[in-house]
Amino acid sequence: MLNSVNWIGIRFEVNGEKIDLHNLEVQSFRRELNMQEGVLYREFAVKLSSGLIFKAKISRFISMLRKEIGAINYQFEIEGGAAEIKISPYLDFDVLNHDSNYDEKFWEGLQETAEANGAQLKAKTRKLDFEVSAAMQFELRKGGQLIQSEINHQKASKYAECSLELAAKAGETYSLRKYAAICSSFHSAKENLDSEAKSLVEKAAMDGFELLLEEQKNNWAQRWEQSDISIEGDAEAQQGIRFNIFHLTQTYTGEDARLNIGPKGFTGEKYGGSTYWDTEAYCLPFYMASAGKEVAKNLLVYRYKHLPKAIENAEKLGFTNGAALYPMVTMNGEECHNEWEITFEEIHRNGAIAYGIFNYTRYFGDETYLAEYGLEVLIGIARFWAQRFNWSEAKQQYVMLGVTGPNEYENNVNNNWYTNYLAKWCLEYTSSVFDTVGKNDAEALKRIISQTNFEPEHELANWKKISSNVYLPVDEAKGVVLQQEGYLDKEQILAADLPISERPINQHWSWDRILRSCFIKQADVLQGFYFFEDDFSEDELRRNFEFYEARTLHESSLSPCVHVVQAAKLNMMDKAYEMYLRTSRLDLDDYNHEVHEGLHITSMAGTWLSVIEGFGGMRVKNGQLHFNPRLPEHWHSISFKINFRGAVVKATLSNAAPKLERISGEPVELVIKGETIAL
Amino acid sequence: MLNSVNWIGIRFEVNGEKIDLHNLEVQSFRRELNMQEGVLYREFAVKLSSGLIFKAKISRFISMLRKEIGAINYQFEIEGGAAEIKISPYLDFDVLNHDSNYDEKFWEGLQETAEANGAQLKAKTRKLDFEVSAAMQFELRKGGQLIQSEINHQKASKYAECSLELAAKAGETYSLRKYAAICSSFHSAKENLDSEAKSLVEKAAMDGFELLLEEQKNNWAQRWEQSDISIEGDAEAQQGIRFNIFHLTQTYTGEDARLNIGPKGFTGEKYGGSTYWDTEAYCLPFYMASAGKEVAKNLLVYRYKHLPKAIENAEKLGFTNGAALYPMVTMNGEECHNEWEITFEEIHRNGAIAYGIFNYTRYFGDETYLAEYGLEVLIGIARFWAQRFNWSEAKQQYVMLGVTGPNEYENNVNNNWYTNYLAKWCLEYTSSVFDTVGKNDAEALKRIISQTNFEPEHELANWKKISSNVYLPVDEAKGVVLQQEGYLDKEQILAADLPISERPINQHWSWDRILRSCFIKQADVLQGFYFFEDDFSEDELRRNFEFYEARTLHESSLSPCVHVVQAAKLNMMDKAYEMYLRTSRLDLDDYNHEVHEGLHITSMAGTWLSVIEGFGGMRVKNGQLHFNPRLPEHWHSISFKINFRGAVVKATLSNAAPKLERISGEPVELVIKGETIAL
Repeated sequence: MLNSVNWIGIRFEVNGEKIDLHNLEVQSFRRELNMQEGVLYREFAVKLSSGLIFKAKISRFISMLRKEIGAINYQFEIEGGAAEIKISPYLDFDVLNHDSNYDEKFWEGLQETAEANGAQLKAKTRKLDFEVSAAMQFELRKGGQLIQSEINHQKASKYAECSLELAAKAGETYSLRKYAAICSSFHSAKENLDSEAKSLVEKAAMDGFELLLEEQKNNWAQRWEQSDISIEGDAEAQQGIRFNIFHLTQTYTGEDARLNIGPKGFTGEKYGGSTYWDTEAYCLPFYMASAGKEVAKNLLVYRYKHLPKAIENAEKLGFTNGAALYPMVTMNGEECHNEWEITFEEIHRNGAIAYGIFNYTRYFGDETYLAEYGLEVLIGIARFWAQRFNWSEAKQQYVMLGVTGPNEYENNVNNNWYTNYLAKWCLEYTSSVFDTVGKNDAEALKRIISQTNFEPEHELANWKKISSNVYLPVDEAKGVVLQQEGYLDKEQILAADLPISERPINQHWSWDRILRSCFIKQADVLQGFYFFEDDFSEDELRRNFEFYEARTLHESSLSPCVHVVQAAKLNMMDKAYEMYLRTSRLDLDDYNHEVHEGLHITSMAGTWLSVIEGFGGMRVKNGQLHFNPRLPEHWHSISFKINFRGAVVKATLSNAAPKLERISGEPVELVIKGETIAL
Repeated sequence: MLNSVNWIGIRFEVNGEKIDLHNLEVQSFRRELNMQEGVLYREFAVKLSSGLIFKAKISRFISMLRKEIGAINYQFEIEGGAAEIKISPYLDFDVLNHDSNYDEKFWEGLQETAEANGAQLKAKTRKLDFEVSAAMQFELRKGGQLIQSEINHQKASKYAECSLELAAKAGETYSLRKYAAICSSFHSAKENLDSEAKSLVEKAAMDGFELLLEEQKNNWAQRWEQSDISIEGDAEAQQGIRFNIFHLTQTYTGEDARLNIGPKGFTGEKYGGSTYWDTEAYCLPFYMASAGKEVAKNLLVYRYKHLPKAIENAEKLGFTNGAALYPMVTMNGEECHNEWEITFEEIHRNGAIAYGIFNYTRYFGDETYLAEYGLEVLIGIARFWAQRFNWSEAKQQYVMLGVTGPNEYENNVNNNWYTNYLAKWCLEYTSSVFDTVGKNDAEALKRIISQTNFEPEHELANWKKISSNVYLPVDEAKGVVLQQEGYLDKEQILAADLPISERPINQHWSWDRILRSCFIKQADVLQGFYFFEDDFSEDELRRNFEFYEARTLHESSLSPCVHVVQAAKLNMMDKAYEMYLRTSRLDLDDYNHEVHEGLHITSMAGTWLSVIEGFGGMRVKNGQLHFNPRLPEHWHSISFKINFRGAVVKATLSNAAPKLERISGEPVELVIKGETIAL
């Protein structure tokens, strides 16, 4: 993910002295992210060497409505006397990525223009020839009044600026409005980029900052209306969940199925903006319930579009006959990771992608996706698993050797329970979807069979033979499943006995020691109990939860949420709240001193799961929405809206008196604490 | 391993035309490596554009006696007319390593000199400041007569040349002798390097090419006298084994315990000149029997010197209390490999280093090494194993998790039989050596206990507790030990059923497929049966050999030799000879099209093992030398000398009538085919 044009830059010089907060005496400073409005506010006062005070108040946002538009309103005044102020708004494509070798730059400048009160840059990416055109316009006002001045222009490679001189009077408030439009060949034809950017920025400038801001507030108001969670009785938790919803909402809007969600969203370079299994395993539920079907569907279609690449990926490993292995990390469907223990061993991701299809279908009760896209993906995935299992003469069962489970503190293990269980489920689910599509849409089935060269009789029988005889390691004595074969040969130590000074172990221990220890990085067995909770009794869950959570260090940000959901279900509310605290304000409080790497966007979706599925106990079962609230003791209530099959339901849940209302849409039947009610 | 100064260069120009075999018409060409004399001969005739013929006959060697000296005798004549010949001998330090990034050069020039009939260069290595001084001298002769000419000099950075013009007559033979001396700060003080190189080259030039050549022939004659193997009845096998002995002899001379043997010796850059476990596991026996005790001892002392680094290496991984883990790949004791599955998992190398000490002591019957150096190393190694095993509650035995055995087509396996067996043996052997040293040399034991902070009571008891209860995987039904736990869960395919078109699998299969297959790269279980053959019955060996060899692809050059020894022991002579062919002329015939990477020096020692231990059936048991010859049918006999405990024994072995003679030294008792005889 390349850093793109810097469109926010405006340089100020007061009597020849640069406004630079790093060097001047800062008298006041405040920065405010207004999540309700989707606007970043900033204000400060600095003292110049002449004794003059420069005060500024800035509003900035990227429009949620006009995707290409960013706007800044930079209000400023001078105190203590008049001054000559030079103002230079500019565009700069000469940007760095931290993640580059020898500070290599990834943009090649194609064109720079600067004229009148605007400038425009065009550049292309070095490797893949994406082109981006950025245009800016600005205006200077005093009160409502436009100020006309002589404008100078300066250009350099990948750079263009305008500048003007203002004879500013003391105590007068001026405002510079800067508008930018950024258009990319990912969305438009290359030959139109310049004119598009230009006309979009002109339109924005014409409409003016106030209108753009109004649109922004309205747009966010609608989004909050859909997605807000209100937590009564815990202001910090309230702020935490809203921060997460805010970022999830602006990271992925679901309008383009070629896009997906990186673990850091657009907030940092770490993980390179690529997509992981996080999307299906953690993010999908938030978008289904808050953003609706079309948005969620595009997350799935993204994988459908990558099916040919996933088949290629499997072929490179020696799989045949249309077997598909989705990459661990990807931009365009190709594998971007480079470690063997991940790329071809951490294959459970393939199951998560199938699970996403199941989850979507279960939530929306709409089987048309299966015929349209889902079954083809499922066939590729099932074919992979059928080849990836092998028959063990010794066990007389199908085994899966050499995998890495979600717990990346193990590599190359045999018979990881989670992977085996998930793979077996994929084989069964794909067979059942085959039947479903056959019943719903015989034409579609025919097309799919032909497109995938599917041999129903042979392949379905083979899948059945395998899935009915998969080896799943268990320890009968302890009544738990085994994370992998041989897990109990490890020295069994509990997380509680690990000194805090040695955590996180990935910063204190050798990789040798980590791999050989029994410690678990993130939910592995319990990820399976989370996905397939109906397959297990509460007793089974409790035994496995107690055994594995005690060995889990939660050193992945994706770990706590699954445990919140399960602890709440088991009514282990202290544990649930302890885990919740680890996820909800992770970035806001910068627990791990790593916010400079970017925000944990995908684990923010996990926080949403913690509240909604954990404390709210929300599930979809047999086509019905269930709630089973269990709140932390000091929370009075939580309330949120759920977009479910044509109805918008508002749930206000407390331990005492849960309340459900239908806000809009179709009548709907819900189940609250086991009791069915009609809204 | 850096390529050092190019000292062989001599440029010829005939009437202004360069002698360049790449561009001229070559009329004849012959290159001969004379292994008996240790001299490289080359002769050729080329036709110049003028029609003149330039003929040359070159002898070149690096002196085995005067380590710093190289010498060239370049005889040439011109046919078809007289000619002006310009001759330019030079030294060039501006050399490349293939294995560098962006052709980075590793030498920094310090000084260039060229005067009279000589030149000198000094350079230092960029990273570690080693300094090398190279000096050359030359003389031009016609018949015996020195020719004096005007000499011009040219210098550039890291380069110095002399040149002279010769009015050559047709049909006359001239000869240019070039002498070089190369001295390094690895051996001498930096301030003396220049004068040493200069005086050594002057002495060499004064003594003259003929004397140096004579010395070379004599020196090699002595070496061949000790180490030759003669094979009657198989000229190709004869040439093969001599080629190997030649290279082993010139790769390691055993005069400096800071040096060791890289898999490619000095013949190529691959493996970077570093030392692997090959030395102890494959090379040591050749040097013990052919080069004698002091040479062999220096191979062991090399590891003793690295003990502090091995302890550091283990500490980095979290081991404590003086546990030592020798590196997989090293120059100076530090680990040079960079893959986790090798560096901290392929730990069986630690056992091979202990086995080397055992093997040395067994061969020479001399326990003083143990007190002097051996026990300290063994304690470090035993401490490592004691910490590396862990107690399995599930098995109620000690297990070793997460290792890579010699078969690198598996990674991160649990309870690799070879590693467990070897580690258990290390614990037992170290305890027994502790007793031995205590009996032989109480003072030494005291010193060692104090130096290693050894706690005899506690540590010996702990080792005993562990070694007496190590889990060793077996399959009772098949009557074989298991390469690792779960090996039989793999799909069992035989090497015989693998199409030749898919071999070597490391060039045709994905790493995923290789890791999950049952195929074995090189002896793993059988390496253990080789090291510890007396622990197993011939029946056990046969069952395991038949099972594992059938699954072994021998895709390491170190694999066949172990199988030759075992197949010969089992009287599977066809298999033994088949395996022998894979190793004996590997480089000479360039089977694998990889000789450009360098010769397989360490596997050459394996070929020696194949002949001596395999076909000759040589063993040392209870302090006696045993022979049990089993030759390939078409071999009439093999004969060789063995340096054994003060006696030099000549063995002439055939299937019919083995013959043993004592050539020199003490009387000795030998066992031939089970029968004891006194020589």
